[in-house]
Amino acid sequence: MFGSNDKKFFEAFNTLAEKIVLGAGLLHEMMEKWDRPEETAHRIKALEHECDEITHDLMRRLNRTFITPFDREDIHDLASKLDDVMDFIDNTANRMVVYRFQAPPPEMAAISDVLMRQSAVLREAVANVKQADHILAKCIEIHSLENEGDRIFHSGIARLFSSVTDPIEVIKQKDLLETVEKATDKCEDAANVLESIMLKNA
Amino acid sequence: MFGSNDKKFFEAFNTLAEKIVLGAGLLHEMMEKWDRPEETAHRIKALEHECDEITHDLMRRLNRTFITPFDREDIHDLASKLDDVMDFIDNTANRMVVYRFQAPPPEMAAISDVLMRQSAVLREAVANVKQADHILAKCIEIHSLENEGDRIFHSGIARLFSSVTDPIEVIKQKDLLETVEKATDKCEDAANVLESIMLKNA
Amino acid sequence: MFGSNDKKFFEAFNTLAEKIVLGAGLLHEMMEKWDRPEETAHRIKALEHECDEITHDLMRRLNRTFITPFDREDIHDLASKLDDVMDFIDNTANRMVVYRFQAPPPEMAAISDVLMRQSAVLREAVANVKQADHILAKCIEIHSLENEGDRIFHSGIARLFSSVTDPIEVIKQKDLLETVEKATDKCEDAANVLESIMLKNA
Repeated sequence: MFGSNDKKFFEAFNTLAEKIVLGAGLLHEMMEKWDRPEETAHRIKALEHECDEITHDLMRRLNRTFITPFDREDIHDLASKLDDVMDFIDNTANRMVVYRFQAPPPEMAAISDVLMRQSAVLREAVANVKQADHILAKCIEIHSLENEGDRIFHSGIARLFSSVTDPIEVIKQKDLLETVEKATDKCEDAANVLESIMLKNA
Repeated sequence: MFGSNDKKFFEAFNTLAEKIVLGAGLLHEMMEKWDRPEETAHRIKALEHECDEITHDLMRRLNRTFITPFDREDIHDLASKLDDVMDFIDNTANRMVVYRFQAPPPEMAAISDVLMRQSAVLREAVANVKQADHILAKCIEIHSLENEGDRIFHSGIARLFSSVTDPIEVIKQKDLLETVEKATDKCEDAANVLESIMLKNA
Repeated sequence: MFGSNDKKFFEAFNTLAEKIVLGAGLLHEMMEKWDRPEETAHRIKALEHECDEITHDLMRRLNRTFITPFDREDIHDLASKLDDVMDFIDNTANRMVVYRFQAPPPEMAAISDVLMRQSAVLREAVANVKQADHILAKCIEIHSLENEGDRIFHSGIARLFSSVTDPIEVIKQKDLLETVEKATDKCEDAANVLESIMLKNA
């Protein structure tokens, strides 16, 4: 069903997904250990640059390739959504450093754990993009992890407004919770593209 | 033009749209009466869960059905955008409760009225998805209601920064206005998918 | 490759892109000169209304035209993304006035300069939508300008939280930086649609 020519596209997707897993793992480690966060943020930023490079290469190759495993605009869309996930992992790490927190807000370990699990499922979905049933099951998992992240986010907002009184601290923590929550949304967006590709090609 | 097999998809869309209308109505009632908001928020949350279920069922059915009323990825897209509208109605209701307001910010009744009217138009558009001219007229109505919501939102922001001095109160009200405004944006996104489907199939 | 019938669609895209360039130029001027900002905001609002009109006309025409230069849903998508860019230029100008700043936050001139350059590239891409190689090069430029805008945005956030202590001032400046940054994101979204159209039609 897929030609040897397609291998490079699948390789690029797998590499992107792999780097997202690494990035989410580093983010989770940052929250758990809170040891030299600047260093971890730098390593995440490096992953983000690598993903940018891979995505740009893929776009250029797409423009020169006539027969592709699925519609070229869908390859474009998937790569760009995976890149978005990495961007928001990087944004979260970056804010942790810029905001000079003494310790991460209490929900950050749990929500970055959700993101780490989502990323692992996303990687599996991407690796098995040719199997419709598999994709659907994985995407449902990603959706329900997004719901789990959402619940943690809402409890964080409730905790914040009932117990923190310094407005600047409220602004910082709220922004951070929103940014990491957006990373879990972006995983869901990538899952939606995978579902869409699967429905088109089944 | 459409087969009997398609009935289940249209039924699902109509049910989603119906629940959005109910949710927007409850939200508006919450703002108008401000009587036991927790109870209203629970009823909205129940609607949100029901929409999640319907959407998941629809996705699973989509994966097993080969001939669909329009492209399967468009059915996926429309369901997912309708689900987003419900999510933001629920987010708004949830924030009203979490933020422990004494009374809703003054713009909330007017903007949730706009959302209620948008939802009613959206329901009509969904119910008449086979009639191109009808869809276009309804979508233009949804866009112009979004503009109306936007104007209320901007006047709310102006009022907030010229008259409220407690920063925590500013943060809360601003977040609430942004959340309900996003619900009206999501109605517009759903209308855009409807237009797109109509253009593809006309 | 394209018929005379298509001219009106290309004209509408070019006009939209031209008005975005004008709007971004006015926004940049507002930040540089800070002289009668209300007047400049009014002129930007007028451009935004004009874009709304052009977009609605284009949608109506689309509904009556059977043969179009590329898929009708893509024409719809491109027009709606261009309209979004104008909306966020207008939102930025509007906030500058509503927030009654004595002077624009220090990053606003640099970031609106990025937006102005992005808009100029977007206009060229739109004007040459038939040339695949050209489009790809322009879109890569828009992406890298978005990265430049992002860096300015992040340095603005860092500056804000390390030097401003009044929470209301923090809220206002943060919102403004986020709004103008979203305008640069919307340029990137428009570029993504252009890439997608190019990939579909190449």
